[in-house]
Amino acid sequence: MKKISERFKKFQYFYPYTVAIVGAQSENLLNYMACAWHTALSFDPPLFGILISKKRFTHKVISEAREFTANFISAEKVKLSAQLGRRSGYEMDKVKEFQVRLSPAKLINSPVIEEAYASFECKVVDFRAYGDHDLFVGEVLAIHEEQKAFSEEGVLNPAQVRPLLYLGSDFYITINPDSLKHVLPE
Amino acid sequence: MKKISERFKKFQYFYPYTVAIVGAQSENLLNYMACAWHTALSFDPPLFGILISKKRFTHKVISEAREFTANFISAEKVKLSAQLGRRSGYEMDKVKEFQVRLSPAKLINSPVIEEAYASFECKVVDFRAYGDHDLFVGEVLAIHEEQKAFSEEGVLNPAQVRPLLYLGSDFYITINPDSLKHVLPE
Repeated sequence: MKKISERFKKFQYFYPYTVAIVGAQSENLLNYMACAWHTALSFDPPLFGILISKKRFTHKVISEAREFTANFISAEKVKLSAQLGRRSGYEMDKVKEFQVRLSPAKLINSPVIEEAYASFECKVVDFRAYGDHDLFVGEVLAIHEEQKAFSEEGVLNPAQVRPLLYLGSDFYITINPDSLKHVLPE
Repeated sequence: MKKISERFKKFQYFYPYTVAIVGAQSENLLNYMACAWHTALSFDPPLFGILISKKRFTHKVISEAREFTANFISAEKVKLSAQLGRRSGYEMDKVKEFQVRLSPAKLINSPVIEEAYASFECKVVDFRAYGDHDLFVGEVLAIHEEQKAFSEEGVLNPAQVRPLLYLGSDFYITINPDSLKHVLPE
């Protein structure tokens, strides 16, 4: 028996989503946050979109930098996600405070997160306001990957990496590698 | 040691994403497809975006209907995802062929998928082209949920439901309920 609601307090029925640590370096600012609202938008050109509330410091930094990195982390790094997701760059220097380790990007100015198993270097090519969040669309210029984390086809290897997934309301979960299936229609 | 690529054949490093069965009923057409590119866009108003290739029959149907439903299914229904994802409504009547069970929506004309543990009824409020896909933005008017599938806060209960997650290249996986954690920054 299903319940049908026209009013819902929390809108999180679509989770789990992978956690992307997103952020940028502008001329004077550097900041990262945990972002669970994101999606690929196009294969060719490769476009990746991230949603950021106007209230976030990262919104300001990416708006200035016109670029960002999106960094995917494993379930063991859940603390980093909670720190970067629930604290604001308006209150503190999160990179310094939480000792976030950064590596230089290849084609943009904004660093990637060293602990990520995959990172995208993105140049902002479109921006659009949707309700209480804004969509930053990045063209993916380069991808960093831990080689053991992916097959040659770029499919995540669940025997090697357990991606951090967000469930809403500060709950996190990860995958069961034994549940992997390759399924084609008959 | 990480590999950095500026050219990448398959762009699927951001998976796993939940599978959403999306579709609509227009005056003369009815079709659903499996969609792995989607994201929430705003809490207030509740907006949910889905990405659909211009080549898909579902693109035509949602464009005509100006509404859609997004339906989340559990890992046991993986065959339905493969059928609706890898076959086209231009070739066959997928709803009939695969005996997809539908239920009426409350506020829109397009049915929801009966087997889903959660479904959104959406009215299209924005549309935007991004490379080889188009973003349909839906205002979520109503949510159907299997009550045991979610906590009162709307957090998925992994002891009750294993959501179907897509990994790319026809690979699927689901969550490990034992890995659930509630984590706040210290």
